[in-house]
Amino acid sequence: MAANNKVLSYEKISAHLKRAEYAVAGELFQTAQRRLKAGKEVIFTNIGNPHQLGQKPLTFIRHVLALVTSPDLLEHPDARNIFLNDEIERAKSYLKNIQGGIGAYAAPNGTECVRKEVANFIQSRDGYPACSDQVFLTNGASEAVRYVLRALIRGPHDGLMAPIPQYPLYSASVGLYDGTLCGYELDEATGWSLSLPALEQAYIKAQNAGVTVRGLVFINPGNPTGNCFTYQNLVDLVYFCHQRNIVILADEVYQENVYQSERPFVSMKKVLHDLGTPYSAECELISFHSISKGPYGECGWRGGYFEMVNIDARTRQEFFKLASINLSPTVPSQVILGIITNPPKPGDPSYQRFTAEREEILASMARRARMIVDTFNSMEGVSSQEVDGAMYCFPKLELPAAAIQAAKDAGKKPDVFYCLKLLEETGISTVPGSGFEQAAGTYHLRTTILPQEREFGEVCRRLKAFHKNFMTQYGAPSAPVQLQSRL
Amino acid sequence: MAANNKVLSYEKISAHLKRAEYAVAGELFQTAQRRLKAGKEVIFTNIGNPHQLGQKPLTFIRHVLALVTSPDLLEHPDARNIFLNDEIERAKSYLKNIQGGIGAYAAPNGTECVRKEVANFIQSRDGYPACSDQVFLTNGASEAVRYVLRALIRGPHDGLMAPIPQYPLYSASVGLYDGTLCGYELDEATGWSLSLPALEQAYIKAQNAGVTVRGLVFINPGNPTGNCFTYQNLVDLVYFCHQRNIVILADEVYQENVYQSERPFVSMKKVLHDLGTPYSAECELISFHSISKGPYGECGWRGGYFEMVNIDARTRQEFFKLASINLSPTVPSQVILGIITNPPKPGDPSYQRFTAEREEILASMARRARMIVDTFNSMEGVSSQEVDGAMYCFPKLELPAAAIQAAKDAGKKPDVFYCLKLLEETGISTVPGSGFEQAAGTYHLRTTILPQEREFGEVCRRLKAFHKNFMTQYGAPSAPVQLQSRL
Repeated sequence: MAANNKVLSYEKISAHLKRAEYAVAGELFQTAQRRLKAGKEVIFTNIGNPHQLGQKPLTFIRHVLALVTSPDLLEHPDARNIFLNDEIERAKSYLKNIQGGIGAYAAPNGTECVRKEVANFIQSRDGYPACSDQVFLTNGASEAVRYVLRALIRGPHDGLMAPIPQYPLYSASVGLYDGTLCGYELDEATGWSLSLPALEQAYIKAQNAGVTVRGLVFINPGNPTGNCFTYQNLVDLVYFCHQRNIVILADEVYQENVYQSERPFVSMKKVLHDLGTPYSAECELISFHSISKGPYGECGWRGGYFEMVNIDARTRQEFFKLASINLSPTVPSQVILGIITNPPKPGDPSYQRFTAEREEILASMARRARMIVDTFNSMEGVSSQEVDGAMYCFPKLELPAAAIQAAKDAGKKPDVFYCLKLLEETGISTVPGSGFEQAAGTYHLRTTILPQEREFGEVCRRLKAFHKNFMTQYGAPSAPVQLQSRL
Repeated sequence: MAANNKVLSYEKISAHLKRAEYAVAGELFQTAQRRLKAGKEVIFTNIGNPHQLGQKPLTFIRHVLALVTSPDLLEHPDARNIFLNDEIERAKSYLKNIQGGIGAYAAPNGTECVRKEVANFIQSRDGYPACSDQVFLTNGASEAVRYVLRALIRGPHDGLMAPIPQYPLYSASVGLYDGTLCGYELDEATGWSLSLPALEQAYIKAQNAGVTVRGLVFINPGNPTGNCFTYQNLVDLVYFCHQRNIVILADEVYQENVYQSERPFVSMKKVLHDLGTPYSAECELISFHSISKGPYGECGWRGGYFEMVNIDARTRQEFFKLASINLSPTVPSQVILGIITNPPKPGDPSYQRFTAEREEILASMARRARMIVDTFNSMEGVSSQEVDGAMYCFPKLELPAAAIQAAKDAGKKPDVFYCLKLLEETGISTVPGSGFEQAAGTYHLRTTILPQEREFGEVCRRLKAFHKNFMTQYGAPSAPVQLQSRL
């Protein structure tokens, strides 16, 4: 049977599925995989996957997990030589509260004892009440976002406003649900800042196209841009969305990854409540968080949550139903979520070690953020904004005309061409800016700050050496061409 | 703001989402949850969740998991007192082969070393080649099914044939993707057997309604019906689907849960290859398996896989892309999948314990299957087919006319009415047959065989006592009414 006679031939499968694009697993990823299979070195700075590059898990987290995984260890006479007392007590508490242990399905919205830990965390972070019934545990924040968009997007006339550049989860999911993505540009020159005119422009453009904007997502700290919003930015977003009846989706998974003190992390939930009524009572807000980021990087366990504020109770029931079709979110990840939202306290046997491990990882990330920005800014025709938070650097590349022509000849976008050459010559795997959307006529790439410090200098050295060769090969950057293409 | 002005008001969210029904989390589930919150006893026989009811995990699985979770244990001088040598070696092998350990994202289709273990398992089970590139690891079989239906179903004119009764994952997912479910009835009187006329009838009905049947799912061993297909049934399915160009979806998650020897489990993959060309080369087949069933019951970890046979390479790429939007399936569950497909071998230190634990669980399930069938068949107006496999019993209830009237008066389906009363009076939580679809005019319920043996007798006793009271209250069954409503 010829391939295209098949029921599941590419030609005959769902168009929505085919339309969804996801650059993080695109051409660069595939090329890196082939390289790896051929036995060549690959440095994976393409994805926020800290443990893959050698970041160690926090001991307390893994000890508690080992104990809830194998409760017979709790009874073993040698266990007290291995585990600290609060590790043992915490494991016992989860085993008591999770019926059937971590091998049993939880409720579709997650284990109640962990939802309570999360609610307490939110409450003490923000200083406003939080309720475990409004907290919904998921297999990572990506799944949480898809649940919400599943309800929000009904067809091509429903729009989601998302930043440009954006994390491609949003474009891909909106595509899958047949909706329309309405990009609002962040201003690169002012540190990827948010501006009301850019929001308004995107909104009017959507309106003119007959699209109803039903949701607006922002990412703070930003991915791929590494920016942190000011308090006023968040206030502006509230006013903007309240006036236009738009649900706010707050992607706050990098809330612990902040490397400066001028713009500390403030949750959108707190801002809503700071503003008081009518905003705190009317604005529909859904916030996302994850165990995969922060200093934890527990990506492989797939855990996260969303908190709902002012969401219709019957719609919350629909989220519950949707989750129940998949039976249960993964349970061990909920234990991790419980721990990171309710970590060891001063005086607990594990407190010092937990805090030291956590702080050293964040301090090292801050050093690496500084180093990568300085590296890019020392390169001809390359400029990077500060990495104030998150795990990424998103420098702008002023590519020479000859390089742009060579890319065209190869049938590739110029930033893809650059990143492929970088991978080929250095083993460094990045994601081209076009995968995140970028202002017309500009070129970027995204790299993480995750190679460990002992290797980070070498990564920076290779980036610089590669770029120097590239510029020698293709000539000086053609800034006027760039400018022209933006007019 | 009034609830219905909200963007995410129930009235304004996606109709596809609202339409999807999922009985396992329906009214019975909600009522049981309320009961639990009120401090009353609930015996959860509503869902295949073995550990929730006290089934123990296999020691080898959890020891290996504890070691890969906390690799520092491998170095601890006391570890050799706690763990067997093959547990330590297996953990080391996973840690060597999974880059970054179980805290790192895996490839979207899962860790290669586990996909190889799965492929070897399939190959030795069936005696035909299997390739790790055709194996795709997921967060449980439910997610796997949704991936496939996502590609298969393009709109209301695309149909999926599914058994009646069916597991509601299929109806709910087809609803979410806006397709049409085309039910083919299993014949209860002959042990829920599959018949070609029933398949043809469903197919013609779909055709007449302008629906193109693109896929057919069968569940073997059956959920909720507990039947095991004959070899000839599987051959019939191949001929039926091949002739009509229908993708076969083989839900084989209960392949280890078989309690008789006349109809042992045979995989559809094996049957396809036994038949040879053109079937083995042309039939599009996707088979599903899970770590949540068998004697393992590792539901909370969410792990499973699907194997693709004769699926277009570009469509496989689309599955990969779809999975990549969610970044990675959960990694610890892959370790469990690796172990159950590649268990300890004779001579290994863990072999005897692993085998004994595994066999005792299955033997106990077989005893409970016998007991529950006998219990239902001893009840007035209740009849149950044999539970040949899986984890469920799906008896038919001949309800008295007065009970049917009382249900009507209460605004409930008769089987829902019965199950609610059962829950209220005994604490036993079941799922009404209407949640699975059932032949018109018949009533059923589904119970699991999962309460542990020390409690199982009491569950059976309560079922019997409740039913006796129910029949006393509502009178003798009205068999003629039943018959009439089927004509």
